Amino acid sequence: MMGKKGAILILSGPSGCGKSTLLKKVYEEIEDYSFSISSTTREPRVGEKDGVDYYFITKEEFEEGIKKGEFLEWANVHGNYYGTSLKPIRAAVDEGKLVIFDIDVQGHNIVRKKLDDIVTSVFITTPSLKELENRLNSRNTDSKEVIERRIENAKTEIKSFKKYDYLIINDDLEKASKELIAIANITRIKSRLFSDEIVNNWLIN
Amino acid sequence: MMGKKGAILILSGPSGCGKSTLLKKVYEEIEDYSFSISSTTREPRVGEKDGVDYYFITKEEFEEGIKKGEFLEWANVHGNYYGTSLKPIRAAVDEGKLVIFDIDVQGHNIVRKKLDDIVTSVFITTPSLKELENRLNSRNTDSKEVIERRIENAKTEIKSFKKYDYLIINDDLEKASKELIAIANITRIKSRLFSDEIVNNWLIN
Repeated sequence: MMGKKGAILILSGPSGCGKSTLLKKVYEEIEDYSFSISSTTREPRVGEKDGVDYYFITKEEFEEGIKKGEFLEWANVHGNYYGTSLKPIRAAVDEGKLVIFDIDVQGHNIVRKKLDDIVTSVFITTPSLKELENRLNSRNTDSKEVIERRIENAKTEIKSFKKYDYLIINDDLEKASKELIAIANITRIKSRLFSDEIVNNWLIN
Repeated sequence: MMGKKGAILILSGPSGCGKSTLLKKVYEEIEDYSFSISSTTREPRVGEKDGVDYYFITKEEFEEGIKKGEFLEWANVHGNYYGTSLKPIRAAVDEGKLVIFDIDVQGHNIVRKKLDDIVTSVFITTPSLKELENRLNSRNTDSKEVIERRIENAKTEIKSFKKYDYLIINDDLEKASKELIAIANITRIKSRLFSDEIVNNWLIN
């Protein structure tokens, strides 16, 4: 198979839009994907595994990575570093994997800027703000303050949907998951993922 | 449903790449599509229907359309005009239809230029030139001259695949049709098809 290459799929959308449920459906249907895993210098908590929950690395390794420009994004929270390293992402893409990111608008913009050619992005939202509020309130998992902050974030983030390739309005889980699976399935056949060499190979084979 | 809008799907690829077979599969699976129909000033042949085979219009109507810039492309062949008018395409897209074009690279470039925002395009090809030659020879429908011309065209057209959004290498009909159906299904959720008004509607609903 010529030009087989992986790609990156970014999903963003307000907390409460149904992203996690949709992602589960995608995992059941598509092949050869991997999930973007963050790196951190904090200690693993009970049950956390290296390469699954995080890449647990040393402060020295992390700072070396920052110097080399290996981090798409990073932050220092209460003295611990957290960040997304390009290294494992590039390795997975080269293996032909679809690397899936579940990140916010700011994270999307950074990944897009650094890896535009191999990125396909999807903004997921509820049909309306009212519906988002209903869903967040009915989940009964978050405090009033958290819900309010999420709603404020959502109001800001929706304004960026045009920066994404696709918009999924999750008013029907079946329909929305069908759309997301379709996107995941075709991300690897974007013409921009294929090199110009393909023409030469096509002509001589 | 907010922002429901149609789109245009362009398919190109060398004669013998399996485009017609793939298209049939798409028609079975997707909804609310229409096929781009050319206009002509020539007389209908026996069995040809207006609005199905062509839009049969008068020379005056055609020339009026040319003046108004309504034709994506047009040609005068032996005194008869042939062309693709924007008018019925725009009407179908406004109704929410997916308008499908089966055109060559040159046609693609023109449609893309004029209607970039609403176009998604797919280049379909065989795994190799050799395989294309085999398929064309085994069909036994074309003269040697026609086959040679098609092969020369294919050699030129493959060089333009990067101008398309997607590349489908039709080495497995089942896989290729799955890919094309997925593209057809998600073309209408490209974020660029949604207006900025969506944000206002989302916030107040």
